[in-house]
Amino acid sequence: MIIVGGTSTNGIDEGLAKALSAELIKVEHKVFPDGESYIRIPQPQKLQGEEVVVVQSTYYPQDKNLMELLFMIEAVKDFGASKVIAVVPYLAYARQDKRFREGEALSIKTVLRSIRNVGADVLITVEPHKAEELNHFVGEVKIVYPEPLFAEELAKIVDKPFVLSPDVGALFRAKMVAEKLNCDYAYIEKERDRITGEITAKNIPRENLQDKDVIIVDDIISTGGTTAQAAKIAYSLGARRVIAAAAHVLMIGEAKKKIQESNVKLVIGTNTVPKAMEDMIYLDVSKIIAEKI
Amino acid sequence: MIIVGGTSTNGIDEGLAKALSAELIKVEHKVFPDGESYIRIPQPQKLQGEEVVVVQSTYYPQDKNLMELLFMIEAVKDFGASKVIAVVPYLAYARQDKRFREGEALSIKTVLRSIRNVGADVLITVEPHKAEELNHFVGEVKIVYPEPLFAEELAKIVDKPFVLSPDVGALFRAKMVAEKLNCDYAYIEKERDRITGEITAKNIPRENLQDKDVIIVDDIISTGGTTAQAAKIAYSLGARRVIAAAAHVLMIGEAKKKIQESNVKLVIGTNTVPKAMEDMIYLDVSKIIAEKI
Repeated sequence: MIIVGGTSTNGIDEGLAKALSAELIKVEHKVFPDGESYIRIPQPQKLQGEEVVVVQSTYYPQDKNLMELLFMIEAVKDFGASKVIAVVPYLAYARQDKRFREGEALSIKTVLRSIRNVGADVLITVEPHKAEELNHFVGEVKIVYPEPLFAEELAKIVDKPFVLSPDVGALFRAKMVAEKLNCDYAYIEKERDRITGEITAKNIPRENLQDKDVIIVDDIISTGGTTAQAAKIAYSLGARRVIAAAAHVLMIGEAKKKIQESNVKLVIGTNTVPKAMEDMIYLDVSKIIAEKI
Repeated sequence: MIIVGGTSTNGIDEGLAKALSAELIKVEHKVFPDGESYIRIPQPQKLQGEEVVVVQSTYYPQDKNLMELLFMIEAVKDFGASKVIAVVPYLAYARQDKRFREGEALSIKTVLRSIRNVGADVLITVEPHKAEELNHFVGEVKIVYPEPLFAEELAKIVDKPFVLSPDVGALFRAKMVAEKLNCDYAYIEKERDRITGEITAKNIPRENLQDKDVIIVDDIISTGGTTAQAAKIAYSLGARRVIAAAAHVLMIGEAKKKIQESNVKLVIGTNTVPKAMEDMIYLDVSKIIAEKI
């Protein structure tokens, strides 16, 4: 087995090589004056007949990282790899999984089909937006959930934990963390006051959060709105401290400010994307990805 | 037949709709805060059972334009198009058509296979770098040559024309223009003086260019080096005036300066890419594309 590390890996390629005792080949990369990417895999003869793990995350600039992923997979296949395992820790376009309005492109379908069509036999990704969307990849799919890592880290930090999901769709994530921490969990069902416009949580009895360390678990922190709102609700229900944990902490635009203003005391994320804040806990997912290979 | 116009068309979608008396549907487009493209085709029910022409050029930012092209093609297919004709006036990654060093990705192959795999039945492109590379698109391919447009325009301007190809590979382009202008043509075979390092042309007798309007024809003006060098050689052989014509005038970096310093009097290009210079002749390729549909 050989690991081929792309241009957007945050050390996951190195981590996999170590965990799997496999050789790592880093791609050679440059950008031509016109903006086109150049990808070269040194010593391609080594790939002949090998199982090859191609590592490339597809955060911003996602289209560049995606095209490079496709170039790498096809090249690896051309050089005789017997099996190509695409490790895409952060999967771009995962939130474009439904046609919310008629006429919309199902972008995640195109992304997954393209990865498959150039030659990936297996796709491994961390915490996709929806597990079902991965059905567009007509091949073997493996999902890596970082929640056990969060729980392990949180166990060192929290006192009287309570895990909160910002909505019912993400509840399974909260459950994974809560079960490891051996604590209660719930999801926020929002209710807007028709007169004041104020948002409150519906289904969480106030006493449940009283003096608790509340951990908000989600797949992604993007512009930060969902996390900030959940934090405010948690404090309004008596939380002592709020911690936010997500696989993909992007922190776009004003997100950091929103998170700080909502008094989130700590953010936990992973290296599926670059480190977005100086003072966050930034966990390495290499080992839990390696377990799936 | 319906024309679906993408985000990088320079009016070619409108030109095609007019030339073919077909309805034009412009895609709705935005970019999410995280950088992901959003594509929506209004009134998708109109595409059901229709031949659909998807227009999207793939100049810089080429990866974004490419991904959007893939999203559009797949969506158009999903909405029931009976046939998808992809019009890609400028084809990104066309110059990565060979492995110059072992291990290099054959990027153009990945691009063409991806366009095919999402559902394009036919590919139409203007002046690709090499016609043979289009074999990677396993479907019908049509190439549009703008040389007749160049000749038509040049006939109004030049006196005693002579067409020059900067190398033997591009000679067929020079020939197309020269035959329409009913004049002579040649290619530059360069020779470097071992002592002075000076480059001269080998196979062009000096009298051939004396007092001529020399037209340098190539597929692309990228960083301008090739054109500038050819212009200098033409002047050294006695050219009266040098004009440069290329399908894709990109003018990257210092190109404009190089072209001006080499005393090129006029640049002719087309709308396969955005207009790169204020004072160039910028030809519309819509009609000659329409002839292929």
